[in-house]
Amino acid sequence: MSLSQVKAFVFDVFGTVVDWRGGVTREADAFLQRYGPPGTRPEVFADAWRSRYVPAMRRVIGGERPFVRLDVLHRENLVDLLPEFGIDANAVPADALDDLNLAWHRLDPWPDSVPGLQRLKARHIIAPLSNGNIRLMVDMAKRAGLPWDAILGAEIARIYKPAPEAYLRTAEVLMLPPDEVCLVAAHNNDLAAARQCGLKTAFIARPLEHGPGQTSDLKAESDWDAVVKDMNELADAVGA
Amino acid sequence: MSLSQVKAFVFDVFGTVVDWRGGVTREADAFLQRYGPPGTRPEVFADAWRSRYVPAMRRVIGGERPFVRLDVLHRENLVDLLPEFGIDANAVPADALDDLNLAWHRLDPWPDSVPGLQRLKARHIIAPLSNGNIRLMVDMAKRAGLPWDAILGAEIARIYKPAPEAYLRTAEVLMLPPDEVCLVAAHNNDLAAARQCGLKTAFIARPLEHGPGQTSDLKAESDWDAVVKDMNELADAVGA
Repeated sequence: MSLSQVKAFVFDVFGTVVDWRGGVTREADAFLQRYGPPGTRPEVFADAWRSRYVPAMRRVIGGERPFVRLDVLHRENLVDLLPEFGIDANAVPADALDDLNLAWHRLDPWPDSVPGLQRLKARHIIAPLSNGNIRLMVDMAKRAGLPWDAILGAEIARIYKPAPEAYLRTAEVLMLPPDEVCLVAAHNNDLAAARQCGLKTAFIARPLEHGPGQTSDLKAESDWDAVVKDMNELADAVGA
Repeated sequence: MSLSQVKAFVFDVFGTVVDWRGGVTREADAFLQRYGPPGTRPEVFADAWRSRYVPAMRRVIGGERPFVRLDVLHRENLVDLLPEFGIDANAVPADALDDLNLAWHRLDPWPDSVPGLQRLKARHIIAPLSNGNIRLMVDMAKRAGLPWDAILGAEIARIYKPAPEAYLRTAEVLMLPPDEVCLVAAHNNDLAAARQCGLKTAFIARPLEHGPGQTSDLKAESDWDAVVKDMNELADAVGA
């Protein structure tokens, strides 16, 4: 694998490092038991919430609105989502919505993430290159023990992936040429955008990110610089 | 002390967390033995280099030039400095200058810094609020074991302290009101600027920052929210 010149590994986080669906489902369950109609399935709620993320982010990338941090998009999407599930947003206390919105700050890592990152950190810079905002990433890292060297990504670039500036600005802040930075992601489209910017690419399959019926991103769809089954295999691949 | 509501401690770094003078002197010594006139004192060289930092930074704060990262200012200041010490900058290989410039990435922490930060990190967010750039702070932290939760400061605000935006933007990124953020610094003027922005303030005396003849910042010059002798005493003060 051609990762020998890589100085920094930067990571997609939601889905790649942490299990967003499991965490959001867990917190939505408690919320729905209190505020939702009986029988609402929290994993359906989690999927519906997540499905609003890409369109909301695209409005920022497309210049229809100025950059706002992901917490703001999540909160707006949550309010928009409630009627779909038969919940009157005005009947829910604002602090209950604020708290549910913080579910995204309290996601659990996949089992290999912390040990793999610890190994990679020994001889490489490791940082999230996520669309999540800095405070979200800090809260998540402190809770989960993710040993980041820095928190990079959308809030520093002030643009969301897959806009090229998100990748290029990350390499610039690291003072590295793009080909000394490797994006690690479970999403082929994220890797394709990174490669367009000259970054190296590593694919990790996360076949349960979207639950047992997942159909997308089950395998590498291009000749990424590395294709691994988890973070430990990535650490093995670079001798970390 | 009124630090009970503080959620994040942010730190001045050069002088407060690390001993810039000792580290730069060490690396200047090796450089001067090769390229300098015999008998040049490396600590004088370190002090002269550092003395060019505030004027260079003020040109950015004052809008005379766009924001550039501190590594760029350090490199320019180094080239300007060499003739003062009888060294022809053109006679020194560029990579020797680049390497000396990285001395600022390789500074040692004061003995209490790492243990104190580790204690503070358990229940607070900890991050540099330094004029040093992100890569500089990452290299320093990895070498010295500084356990930052995130790297904040000038390169994120794209302005240098003591401009108010440097403090306010840091609080904003942390999604905290300014009075839930405490600046820890060995410099009274830095604390004064932070207090103007509504941040809490903690003074740590570093009486050897400028060597044995230091005359400034030997003691707290205002009623800062905390005045401590080192990072461990700060951790004691907040029950960390």
